[in-house]
Amino acid sequence: MKFSAQQIAAALKGSIEGNENVDVNSISKIEEGKPGSISFLANPKYTQYIYNTNASIVIVNNDFKATEPVKPTLIRVENAENAFGQLLAMYSQVKLDKKGISPQGFINETATVGENIYLGEFAVVAENAKIGNNVKIYPQVYIGENVTIGDNTTLFAGVKIYSDCLIGKDCIIHSGTVIGSDGFRFALQDGGKKIPQIGNVIIEDNVEIGSNCSIDRATIGSTILRSGVKFDNLVHIAHNVEIKENSYLAAGNVVAGSTTIGKNCMFSGQVGIIGHLEIADNTMIAAQSGVSKSIKQPGTAVMGSPSMEITKYRKNYIHFKNLTDIVDKLKGVEKKVSES
Amino acid sequence: MKFSAQQIAAALKGSIEGNENVDVNSISKIEEGKPGSISFLANPKYTQYIYNTNASIVIVNNDFKATEPVKPTLIRVENAENAFGQLLAMYSQVKLDKKGISPQGFINETATVGENIYLGEFAVVAENAKIGNNVKIYPQVYIGENVTIGDNTTLFAGVKIYSDCLIGKDCIIHSGTVIGSDGFRFALQDGGKKIPQIGNVIIEDNVEIGSNCSIDRATIGSTILRSGVKFDNLVHIAHNVEIKENSYLAAGNVVAGSTTIGKNCMFSGQVGIIGHLEIADNTMIAAQSGVSKSIKQPGTAVMGSPSMEITKYRKNYIHFKNLTDIVDKLKGVEKKVSES
Amino acid sequence: MKFSAQQIAAALKGSIEGNENVDVNSISKIEEGKPGSISFLANPKYTQYIYNTNASIVIVNNDFKATEPVKPTLIRVENAENAFGQLLAMYSQVKLDKKGISPQGFINETATVGENIYLGEFAVVAENAKIGNNVKIYPQVYIGENVTIGDNTTLFAGVKIYSDCLIGKDCIIHSGTVIGSDGFRFALQDGGKKIPQIGNVIIEDNVEIGSNCSIDRATIGSTILRSGVKFDNLVHIAHNVEIKENSYLAAGNVVAGSTTIGKNCMFSGQVGIIGHLEIADNTMIAAQSGVSKSIKQPGTAVMGSPSMEITKYRKNYIHFKNLTDIVDKLKGVEKKVSES
Repeated sequence: MKFSAQQIAAALKGSIEGNENVDVNSISKIEEGKPGSISFLANPKYTQYIYNTNASIVIVNNDFKATEPVKPTLIRVENAENAFGQLLAMYSQVKLDKKGISPQGFINETATVGENIYLGEFAVVAENAKIGNNVKIYPQVYIGENVTIGDNTTLFAGVKIYSDCLIGKDCIIHSGTVIGSDGFRFALQDGGKKIPQIGNVIIEDNVEIGSNCSIDRATIGSTILRSGVKFDNLVHIAHNVEIKENSYLAAGNVVAGSTTIGKNCMFSGQVGIIGHLEIADNTMIAAQSGVSKSIKQPGTAVMGSPSMEITKYRKNYIHFKNLTDIVDKLKGVEKKVSES
Repeated sequence: MKFSAQQIAAALKGSIEGNENVDVNSISKIEEGKPGSISFLANPKYTQYIYNTNASIVIVNNDFKATEPVKPTLIRVENAENAFGQLLAMYSQVKLDKKGISPQGFINETATVGENIYLGEFAVVAENAKIGNNVKIYPQVYIGENVTIGDNTTLFAGVKIYSDCLIGKDCIIHSGTVIGSDGFRFALQDGGKKIPQIGNVIIEDNVEIGSNCSIDRATIGSTILRSGVKFDNLVHIAHNVEIKENSYLAAGNVVAGSTTIGKNCMFSGQVGIIGHLEIADNTMIAAQSGVSKSIKQPGTAVMGSPSMEITKYRKNYIHFKNLTDIVDKLKGVEKKVSES
Repeated sequence: MKFSAQQIAAALKGSIEGNENVDVNSISKIEEGKPGSISFLANPKYTQYIYNTNASIVIVNNDFKATEPVKPTLIRVENAENAFGQLLAMYSQVKLDKKGISPQGFINETATVGENIYLGEFAVVAENAKIGNNVKIYPQVYIGENVTIGDNTTLFAGVKIYSDCLIGKDCIIHSGTVIGSDGFRFALQDGGKKIPQIGNVIIEDNVEIGSNCSIDRATIGSTILRSGVKFDNLVHIAHNVEIKENSYLAAGNVVAGSTTIGKNCMFSGQVGIIGHLEIADNTMIAAQSGVSKSIKQPGTAVMGSPSMEITKYRKNYIHFKNLTDIVDKLKGVEKKVSES
């Protein structure tokens, strides 16, 4: 995709200074600008770069005043940072605007698909699945029987969705993620016999899930991710978990069965949470922490494995770092006392 | 799938009370019952729900006595909990009873397949692979050259099995799991040159592996999972590991190369075990623990990173939680002693 | 594949002792030798096994003197260990020497492919992708638009590469790995609105990546893995990370956004590193450690969560293991002091 300075200035409602016929086909940071790329300058800390960047176009604020000669074409706008954000969104939208059903894709005759969808090569839509409008199904995706996919949702290459799961509108699910695999439940008293996992997974609207995540179906009922939930990569969610609105789980999180997580929570990387807990709204969990008890007070921050309140953990950990000194002091006191 | 109260009562050898023509197509917990679903009541704690559940059918014990009017059709049986378990197993079996070889699947002419198999769209069975009877191969599975799959095994969508691996009977492997990728071995003294990984993976009978697991082939010889082993999701098993009968590994476990794990072990989530260790039978490992030494005594429970005996860890961790107080006390004593 | 003792002796420039017509089709350790397998003996500790191994051929050093009768055919060479390594490399090369484009594969008409490539069933090469010479693309791989794959690179079954990523020469990427999924960035002040991720991933030459890894594209610019980097399985690399030459990350590592990792680093399993850090060359990180600060001194070894210098951690951890004793001693001193 190529765009001229004129086209971009028109889209951003900006004015051009310099060669208005220059074309760009990529977007760069100003300090990494290459010929054919467009950049922006908003933070005065980066002003120095505009005098030697190789970017072909730079978006600047209306009030920018060059103190040396500037090579790239400038596009002046009210707010360069916002305009650049707008440009990224436009670029991203054009780039991901795929349409059409590949003749190499497979849609079962009992499935229904909405208008304006994309279905890539070797993707499968199984019996009775329902695909909404404007859904993008990349190559090698598997959509099991009776699955519903809401409007405007994107499933990247190789996503696997087991039967009976419901995915909402405006969701994004990245490659390699598995939705609806069986929960990890066996009757130990009965020789490890498998407990049938006949529930499903419900994902509401505006959820984004990273790559290679595993979200298990419920034993009975539903594993639920509420609207606005966001996952990074390699996250594990066990059977019958519920995660409420707008909570964020970073990479490598593991949430065990039947735990409920509140709204607006923020969990850093590699956090583990055991089963059957309730985690309050607005909970923050530090990286690599392990939560073994319910958290009842909204807005709590915890750290450690097992976790405790974060300031308490940090204080104790400072003492842990000094434990050799502490033990030496104790020995000193012991000696003095035994000598006295 | 729809079933009438009559069909279900016949299958469970129960007696019907109420409308015997009502149909159900789903299974629910009694407290979440919806029209068209079937539920059960065994635990007296849940009796209250039977008077306002929307489930269409409820399975109850023969001796259940309603103290208020009950809307759903009842099916009375000897043991409602067992009958419900039976129903789940039947439902699950019917649901997963897929058959037939898709014209969009690919079986190499040198491969052999048993009777009554399912092979989904865009699945691949490579040269000289041997597929047993009643095997279910979901869409987009890859079965490499010379792989053997035992009778009644199910491979869900997108499982990848590298060449020469052996999978036993009655196994279940979930989507995204990779069997037989190369072990992580490089000759550091030789500029990081790859050490060829020419062994395989052997998985015995009745093994279940969750989604997005990675099980590496042996350098020479075999990485082995013995009968009855069960893995949750996102588990990593390195080259030449052996895991003995009926051991359970929860999500996010990482086992390094050449370690042997005994029978009937239970490892909680995110456990890590370094290479070349021997872990005794019946070992229990707490979540997020890191095992750095062999465990020789069967039945040991450990915790911590690096791990120690679990009661010892817990006692020490209580002191860690009080470390700030402990240090204050030490300072108090030091002051007293220096003043005396 | 079958080879005779004669063929192998010729390839290894060795001399045969015993039946020169015996065939082998597998490679084993001497202690696990089976009929039809070839083994080697170099370490005197294993000499005992040569007298009862069932291997059909054993490679031995020229100076090996049997003290009892030996059943297998011997191939005598200058250095048995090196010769066996050579044999493994040859075997591995023959085994993985796949060629040809499957009629069930899909190459977009705008893509270009080099000479002598392998493209398996249901693999996809999208618009404008450029595939080098001798590239092996296993079944069900997805190569997105504008992706470049360098000569001699192997992508095992089911690898997914998003648009615009660049993969170098002589790389190996294992099944289930995802390259170029979106970075985990949302504008929290703006209701969690997605920040477009329009950068890419650049992987240089001679990189090996294990199975089920997730490597996110940059927000703007590139996430970069330099030449010779090696990853085990289930590794997460966030947006805009750079990992310099010849660094090794073991299974389950999680590296957060915009962190730079130096050359020749060695990270054990389940390590986590937070975002925006600089990690010096030759850093070693112990398993399950969590790094929360930049490491400036090359050659540093760290441990713990949060991590500290490794010998310091180990000393303190020994005291942690004795904390119950330490607290008892403190109580003893306190008592004495209060009584005095």
